[in-house]
Amino acid sequence: MSIDPLQIGFMPPADKITTQNVMELVAYGQTKGFDFVVSPLNSPAYRRVLFEGDGPQSPAMTAWRAGMEAFRPEDLVLRTADHSDYIVGTLSEWQDFDSKDARVRLHSELALRQQFNWLSHLGLSGILLPYPPSTQPLTNYGRVLAGSLAMVPYATCWFQVPCMDEVLEQGVAEELQGMKSWERWNSLRNMAGSESKLGVALELSDALPSDQVLDRWFAEPVKVIVLPEVIFLTNNKGYPVLSKRHQHVIRKFLKHKPSFIIQSSTLPKLVLDEFSDDTLQHSFSSPYADYIRYLHRTQEAPGVIDQFATGYQDYLQAPLQPLQDNLESSTYETFEKDPIKYQQYELAIERALRDRPLPTEGEPDVTVIMVVGAGRGPLVNCSLRAADTAGRNVRVYAVEKNPNAFVTIQNMKASLWGDRVNIVFSDMRSWKAPEQADILVSELLGSFGDNELSPECLDGAQKFLKPDGISIPANYTTFVAPMASNKLHTDVSTFKDLAHFETSYVVMFKAISLLAQPKPIWVFEHPNRVEIPLGQDPLSNHHNIRSGSIEFTSATSGMLHGVAGYFESVLYKDVMISINPETHSPGMFSWFPIYFPVKTPLYIPAQAKIVLDFWRLTDTRKVWYEWRVSCIVDGLGEIHSTPLHNVGGRSSSIGLF
Amino acid sequence: MSIDPLQIGFMPPADKITTQNVMELVAYGQTKGFDFVVSPLNSPAYRRVLFEGDGPQSPAMTAWRAGMEAFRPEDLVLRTADHSDYIVGTLSEWQDFDSKDARVRLHSELALRQQFNWLSHLGLSGILLPYPPSTQPLTNYGRVLAGSLAMVPYATCWFQVPCMDEVLEQGVAEELQGMKSWERWNSLRNMAGSESKLGVALELSDALPSDQVLDRWFAEPVKVIVLPEVIFLTNNKGYPVLSKRHQHVIRKFLKHKPSFIIQSSTLPKLVLDEFSDDTLQHSFSSPYADYIRYLHRTQEAPGVIDQFATGYQDYLQAPLQPLQDNLESSTYETFEKDPIKYQQYELAIERALRDRPLPTEGEPDVTVIMVVGAGRGPLVNCSLRAADTAGRNVRVYAVEKNPNAFVTIQNMKASLWGDRVNIVFSDMRSWKAPEQADILVSELLGSFGDNELSPECLDGAQKFLKPDGISIPANYTTFVAPMASNKLHTDVSTFKDLAHFETSYVVMFKAISLLAQPKPIWVFEHPNRVEIPLGQDPLSNHHNIRSGSIEFTSATSGMLHGVAGYFESVLYKDVMISINPETHSPGMFSWFPIYFPVKTPLYIPAQAKIVLDFWRLTDTRKVWYEWRVSCIVDGLGEIHSTPLHNVGGRSSSIGLF
Repeated sequence: MSIDPLQIGFMPPADKITTQNVMELVAYGQTKGFDFVVSPLNSPAYRRVLFEGDGPQSPAMTAWRAGMEAFRPEDLVLRTADHSDYIVGTLSEWQDFDSKDARVRLHSELALRQQFNWLSHLGLSGILLPYPPSTQPLTNYGRVLAGSLAMVPYATCWFQVPCMDEVLEQGVAEELQGMKSWERWNSLRNMAGSESKLGVALELSDALPSDQVLDRWFAEPVKVIVLPEVIFLTNNKGYPVLSKRHQHVIRKFLKHKPSFIIQSSTLPKLVLDEFSDDTLQHSFSSPYADYIRYLHRTQEAPGVIDQFATGYQDYLQAPLQPLQDNLESSTYETFEKDPIKYQQYELAIERALRDRPLPTEGEPDVTVIMVVGAGRGPLVNCSLRAADTAGRNVRVYAVEKNPNAFVTIQNMKASLWGDRVNIVFSDMRSWKAPEQADILVSELLGSFGDNELSPECLDGAQKFLKPDGISIPANYTTFVAPMASNKLHTDVSTFKDLAHFETSYVVMFKAISLLAQPKPIWVFEHPNRVEIPLGQDPLSNHHNIRSGSIEFTSATSGMLHGVAGYFESVLYKDVMISINPETHSPGMFSWFPIYFPVKTPLYIPAQAKIVLDFWRLTDTRKVWYEWRVSCIVDGLGEIHSTPLHNVGGRSSSIGLF
Repeated sequence: MSIDPLQIGFMPPADKITTQNVMELVAYGQTKGFDFVVSPLNSPAYRRVLFEGDGPQSPAMTAWRAGMEAFRPEDLVLRTADHSDYIVGTLSEWQDFDSKDARVRLHSELALRQQFNWLSHLGLSGILLPYPPSTQPLTNYGRVLAGSLAMVPYATCWFQVPCMDEVLEQGVAEELQGMKSWERWNSLRNMAGSESKLGVALELSDALPSDQVLDRWFAEPVKVIVLPEVIFLTNNKGYPVLSKRHQHVIRKFLKHKPSFIIQSSTLPKLVLDEFSDDTLQHSFSSPYADYIRYLHRTQEAPGVIDQFATGYQDYLQAPLQPLQDNLESSTYETFEKDPIKYQQYELAIERALRDRPLPTEGEPDVTVIMVVGAGRGPLVNCSLRAADTAGRNVRVYAVEKNPNAFVTIQNMKASLWGDRVNIVFSDMRSWKAPEQADILVSELLGSFGDNELSPECLDGAQKFLKPDGISIPANYTTFVAPMASNKLHTDVSTFKDLAHFETSYVVMFKAISLLAQPKPIWVFEHPNRVEIPLGQDPLSNHHNIRSGSIEFTSATSGMLHGVAGYFESVLYKDVMISINPETHSPGMFSWFPIYFPVKTPLYIPAQAKIVLDFWRLTDTRKVWYEWRVSCIVDGLGEIHSTPLHNVGGRSSSIGLF
């Protein structure tokens, strides 16, 4: 069995499955159109091993401990490898790894290892691991799993977690119901190692946790959703359906492509009579599975961004270095397809053109627009269209330093633009402009706003902007938010060096959870008439240093794996572009967010303060960011602080040349 | 200047030192017998740079920012490198790295870098860094230091910290006075990187913190003790002396070999008249410095342990692997010199001999003693002496597997022992003994008790012990305690791999601080008649698995860098040996404690619970430990947990063969 997207399995009550009927269960599952069935590996008889033998020196105990008679035939439900590709196994529930009795602990561990061995021998590809009662610690369970998962290299292991807590602890707010389950999973995962293959099988129930609690699970490897049949309602045609809220939750999880398990509380009639008239169940397909497939089919069609993002989700990309490197044609092409960004630029230029004073009597009406970093020319096109709309004459300069892109704009001028556009091959910072511009248009922003050195480039270009000239964009604000993402942190960890923890990554987020909403951290405004003498180059780059110390409060507990970064930019007056989730320009896909990892994940208690300290620093050759995260609890002070990341730009920086 | 043990310096008020009198200060210090003097690098005039220039575009500001006119002559106290080997510099106090004013922050940073540059140029070998008022954050200061310390590779940097808090925060217990200072240092050090060269210059005052607060400083790099003259009392002969408590504290610090700075609140008459009759000051030596030298001279003579430990303090040693490796002769020789251990063994054997029943009428009085792991024979000697004292006949077997040690016991038998001793070349676990022993004597303990596999060895040897026979030792208990030691953690970090964090080290502790007193975690008893059939080998090694989850409470806050391990052992009845600090056998030096690091240091808030989980695990080839540490705060739950260390013995283990 390979658990591919929308695999749906069937799980009857474990105590009803025996070695006699397990092949009937397989036939039932196949007939009903399930992709797999779930069966216990062992019969209840196997529990004997907890107390095997009469005493520590008994031959039976000794033999069993030594693995000489791991299983007697009556211990096993799954005795052969028949249909092992169609069966997911469950481990015995009576194992008690954190018992106070050392013998029960040891025998539980040995039993788990023997079952892992057997499961591996049979070639099952999935295992469901039981969830111990919440009164029990998970310390030794975690240790046992950490040491045993390597025994089943070809099987996926799912820890079955209920979405609601068995008991809500005293003093815990109702909306935090379900957090204890997450805490227990988190604790177990931390023990077993975050890089481990352990996934979650999240069991939904009648009652569901609040959105903020569910949100924590979106940053976790939820590989399976377990749906008990009893949580389904019956519609007026007699078919099983789910409540609106359940539908909503499942639709959110569907984006993460889990498998599903339909959990039955009674054993159905496994031997199906193909001629019977079973009105409700359509005989040969499970109405529960049919319903989940229906939800899957009727998901919202993926938006432009999702289509564009396919294959990029949770994938770590190095940010562009447009000053050091020349972008490739395909990169330009991708970004030029953005339906929103250029629409906003065109609108901004049009508004700016309309705001420029008309020429005095006798003067020609020509507005000078300089597109700096013209690339393959999309902003030149925007400028020309805006001029047409606004009914103003323009003289456009297209300045580009990338020789490959310049070939394209040479062709554009020859074939399309003609005399309205002057093309200039130069770095905007060193160009000697023949006249001064009314409007300076650029698209130099990165996911973190200034991280592709827009401030430094525009500081160099503003010397040929008229004293009352306009820069589009007028400003940009950087936003940060503390975030959880086990996946991204684990991916950074695989490099096994400090440098990768001190580097930022452009990522299309999927399996992440923000611990608090993003807040602004700093702003750049253009042109900068305060720090830079009119018509001159900046005196140094010190004025582009920024820092911020921003405080957040996390409503629920969570793990902090790093910081998410976004930007908002005012192009002109009320014309904006944004990738900040709360104000995201709908349909704009040119920027994914940015991810700054921390070296060691921090546990954040509910209601704790999270402080993000960020610096944008510079020397004569480069710009870099440094960051640290701390967590403050009232009355306790700073309970965590990370080291300072990327001291002096030692691990990552953006070259000025 | 090289700051060697008991270097004492002189520090006058910074504002009284000018470029005109600094050479007089040097002459004064030299005449008075100081090893160095402390002088500001800059005059107060240099403060101008905080607000240099009239505005951001002013040429003066621009030039200064660019480092073109870093210092004007009047900015500097130290203008030349004269006597730079005798001068420790201090940085300007007015720098405000965490000002709300971005310009003050930037200019403070640039000023620090310019001073570091100048200091490096002059070749000063020490710098005192100012302590900002406790109302200010240290975030940006820490970041600036992290990025600047590399500029002064040849100078030691000391952050001057008052031992008492300026203000005791509301609700903080009186006995925690001074913790805020430590917290601030800890925060700064975490920012600057724990591996950095930043040390502490701890400034004592009239009032001193409680012992538990001072204890935190013993785990920190306190390189200098600053003693203001005003805290000295005057004895009845008019000489400056310190209170008993100050003496006590200084004597404790003296073990860490700090330098001292005598801080004067007034400028003394720098030009000394060698013919004046200055009754109090002996003219040519500082009575303050004399007094510190007196305390240094009159320290308790180092005990045997300290003598033995010289050169081993805080040095990470791999534990012995006596089963896998053969010990060297020098190792035996070192341990044989222990004055206490063999005295205790001899006493235990004597008591055991006296307790053995006398032979029945007609039987010969012979007690069979088997020394297993005899090494070069010290326990054989103990046995023979004990037999003489007890007046019992003995037949001693000396069993040893190390062929090199065996040569020595062959000689011992030939020259000394004769027929009373049978020597046997064998691993005790595989020896076929010709008769059964009354007393089995062994010395197989490691620092963590069972970590040199005493349990496994004695389990194998007990088959030739009579049913009522005695094992010396009778049992051993392992103790653990949470500990702080920046030094040890940093030393482990330098290996830059996971394996070294998952290994234990034998260490003569010096710069450490226990966060709570040690507690027992598990016990081994010998002989083991419950798990092992009489006269047989053990059936498996599962009975030597141990685990423990031990809870501690830390009275004050602190950093947890790992776990300290110790053992206590009952040799026979009330004859014990112990390296547990609370019961340590006086003068016994054979064992240093053991250190288990954690991958990432944890901050422990005052009154938080620390849980240490330890496992001793085994398979057929090896024995290993796994461990994790967590921290629990009432009402918040588990705020920290380390990953499980050494899963499956992947990084360190002790071979059974």
